[in-house]
Amino acid sequence: MQPLSIIPVHGLPEVRPGDALAALVVASAAAQGTPLLDGDCIVVTQKIVSKAEGRLVPIDPDDRPARRALVESESVRVLRRRGDLIISETPHGFVCANAGIDLSNVDDGWAALLPVDADRSARRIRDALRATHAVTVAVVISDTFGRPWRNGLTDVAIGVAGLAAVVDLRGTTDALGRALQVTEVAVADEVAAAAELVMGKSAAVPVAIVRGLDPAWQRESSSRELVRAPGDDLFR
Amino acid sequence: MQPLSIIPVHGLPEVRPGDALAALVVASAAAQGTPLLDGDCIVVTQKIVSKAEGRLVPIDPDDRPARRALVESESVRVLRRRGDLIISETPHGFVCANAGIDLSNVDDGWAALLPVDADRSARRIRDALRATHAVTVAVVISDTFGRPWRNGLTDVAIGVAGLAAVVDLRGTTDALGRALQVTEVAVADEVAAAAELVMGKSAAVPVAIVRGLDPAWQRESSSRELVRAPGDDLFR
Repeated sequence: MQPLSIIPVHGLPEVRPGDALAALVVASAAAQGTPLLDGDCIVVTQKIVSKAEGRLVPIDPDDRPARRALVESESVRVLRRRGDLIISETPHGFVCANAGIDLSNVDDGWAALLPVDADRSARRIRDALRATHAVTVAVVISDTFGRPWRNGLTDVAIGVAGLAAVVDLRGTTDALGRALQVTEVAVADEVAAAAELVMGKSAAVPVAIVRGLDPAWQRESSSRELVRAPGDDLFR
Repeated sequence: MQPLSIIPVHGLPEVRPGDALAALVVASAAAQGTPLLDGDCIVVTQKIVSKAEGRLVPIDPDDRPARRALVESESVRVLRRRGDLIISETPHGFVCANAGIDLSNVDDGWAALLPVDADRSARRIRDALRATHAVTVAVVISDTFGRPWRNGLTDVAIGVAGLAAVVDLRGTTDALGRALQVTEVAVADEVAAAAELVMGKSAAVPVAIVRGLDPAWQRESSSRELVRAPGDDLFR
């Protein structure tokens, strides 16, 4: 395997509803001397995707019943509650805190909702880059989720285009020639986590370029691959 | 933030009990033209740490009761069972499948157990690199775990030395100057996930160099930071 480079993309302007993210990313990447290349994967945070798509709603942050109602309206099932924290399942099938609704890095009095379909968001960026900017890249839309049992949050993929969300190793063997016990790797989640390392939370770095991923992972895909069916889940 | 490089370390020999991993990593990294540098973080898979530490036990893979008994002997609490799969809590506090016991990339008839204390394993490698090889690096011991709700496995940190396992952002602000909602990032888990992208499961790449991490994350640390106390966990 070759080395991987993870390049933060600086200098994006504040994103507004209707903005064309593909053009913004191309311009910022070129301006800092790291233009996009065929085979790159770009990781784009949910926040700027939601802003570009106008997934913003007014909210009084001190109105707890209103916040709770908003989370419930963006959920299909509540799994746990503790104080103001709600762990719920979103219409996409993601299980996360507060249905992914977030007030950070959004104008005061507004909340950002998850994209309606982040796979479609990723596909649009990928298609625009190919059609208008003549570069073929994979796109991962990332968000920051907690998880049971382990402290701290990590970035995961909520949308994907042109990259396997999950790589299935069934049929492959270990270095000693035996069938592998670990058979499915959540590559898109690992890509999102890797990108977070150069983004920071307080820095205005909402995009990273991941360069050097295994070309065998390039294919049409969907974040649905990452969603475990409730019947297969031992913890739902 | 600067770009991050993730460099696979090829050419490590098959690791045997008693081997000095620090010396093997230094030699392999140098041989491929990417010698370790001060400030690097090296990610070392649990498998070769367990082998070097002799954490191997004989097992008949077809003897299911014996396998089950071994998993239970390496667990402090069983959370779920389905068929041959046991999700349990290890003495370290990790929740994972089969107590982290794994038959892949181990000689036939043997199973690798988790290191007794992977923080100590990481510290030993870090100390040996500093004392004998005059290079100061952080060390993450990684393993491949599943998680609820999401398909596919990702690599996480089970041991850490010289790198914050969790970075606490409380008191920092977003790009618009407000207190961040996301306050704790599981940096060591994200580093482990990033490294997995260049390791593969079938390739014999048990070590990767992560170069360019934020120097502010260098500090003494422990994988215990990643273990959520059962009383704080909504899903235990």
